Amino acid sequence: MTRAGPGRPRLTSPRRPGTTARAEILDAAAELFSTRGFATTSTRQIADAVGIRQASLYNHFATKNDILATLLDATIAPTVEFDESLDDSEPAAVLLCALTWFDAAQLCAGRWNLGALYMLPEVRSEPFEAFREGRLRLARRYRDLAAEVLGGGPLAGSDPRAELPFRLVESVIDIRADRQMDEQVIDAQLPEILATAALTVLGRPAEDVVDRARALVVGVADESLEAVLAQK
Amino acid sequence: MTRAGPGRPRLTSPRRPGTTARAEILDAAAELFSTRGFATTSTRQIADAVGIRQASLYNHFATKNDILATLLDATIAPTVEFDESLDDSEPAAVLLCALTWFDAAQLCAGRWNLGALYMLPEVRSEPFEAFREGRLRLARRYRDLAAEVLGGGPLAGSDPRAELPFRLVESVIDIRADRQMDEQVIDAQLPEILATAALTVLGRPAEDVVDRARALVVGVADESLEAVLAQK
Repeated sequence: MTRAGPGRPRLTSPRRPGTTARAEILDAAAELFSTRGFATTSTRQIADAVGIRQASLYNHFATKNDILATLLDATIAPTVEFDESLDDSEPAAVLLCALTWFDAAQLCAGRWNLGALYMLPEVRSEPFEAFREGRLRLARRYRDLAAEVLGGGPLAGSDPRAELPFRLVESVIDIRADRQMDEQVIDAQLPEILATAALTVLGRPAEDVVDRARALVVGVADESLEAVLAQK
Repeated sequence: MTRAGPGRPRLTSPRRPGTTARAEILDAAAELFSTRGFATTSTRQIADAVGIRQASLYNHFATKNDILATLLDATIAPTVEFDESLDDSEPAAVLLCALTWFDAAQLCAGRWNLGALYMLPEVRSEPFEAFREGRLRLARRYRDLAAEVLGGGPLAGSDPRAELPFRLVESVIDIRADRQMDEQVIDAQLPEILATAALTVLGRPAEDVVDRARALVVGVADESLEAVLAQK
């Protein structure tokens, strides 16, 4: 940790990632929301943490809710975009494996563990409806692919195992939260482990699809995921 | 839902479970914490929801943190007790399957989805140390059993798959949170599905241990679990 210089007290991150004020505001808010809580953080504190005036913050975000909504959207947007880039003529097992892999990698890669904010009662209110719908749509996509891996048909659609791949990928959030308390590091193998488990919980071995899924993920990975994926 | 009578505004649960004031306070706090948030709920609001005076509440709990700590402990205590009742001469696969089954059933059974509070930044502070340690001890127990199922030895101990059974069981919390938004009902098969998945993610089919595990769980189930387990 860098020693704070003289003057106004600062948070632990004197230089924030991002070259724009907007990116710095998002990073500061992410830190404060995840370390101190959403309800107890004010836009004033966020502005202070960036080193700008509260009035300047309002040029970028009208409310604290807007900031949270932007942060929450960022936890699903890359995965939705990745999913849309996939060729649906690939077998469902490959698609599910690749989707889980990419999603787990991007949930691991964020500087702050924003998924931990999903459970906030506030997120159930109106300003977050678009996020909630986006996340449920993604959950449905996982469920549909899982049902297809389970053999398709109406029986597979109501098989409760189809629920499990999405739950496995979101376990990254809990693992990160616990690692924080444990002072341990995220296991670099985690995205691949979860991508494999997403199939094995459906009773479908993953050996024959892992290489193809990895190729799909590496093919689109941008540099924010590089650190996580390079390990593989 | 019952229509509220005249007089002081009440929450949606006019008669709370529990015959003691302490139990009613815990139920009201659980409702408020999970529907409105922890930081934004005062002990005054909890007392109001029970219909007692704030001073009476302090006869039972010194602080709001004490109430939360009691609620959090209740999410792991039954499982720890169940685990201690198990005969360690049973095969690890049976123990892991039974532990997951019971734990998932009791996480499904609570009136409020208290596990959703695990992620609160406040829970990282000192008053919740005993809870955090208890939960990490339980996570370690899952990991140790999983490592044994994976074949034992130092290699199995560092196999990241050993992490997955505990994550699967806690996915009950996310599933409940989403069902709330989805207006769907918890799937009665969920505990068994997760108990099976806890083995299949380790590459170990569950067919030969499911009956034994069910017998162990049903053997100790108290009436709070009855509703969930009776379905099986």
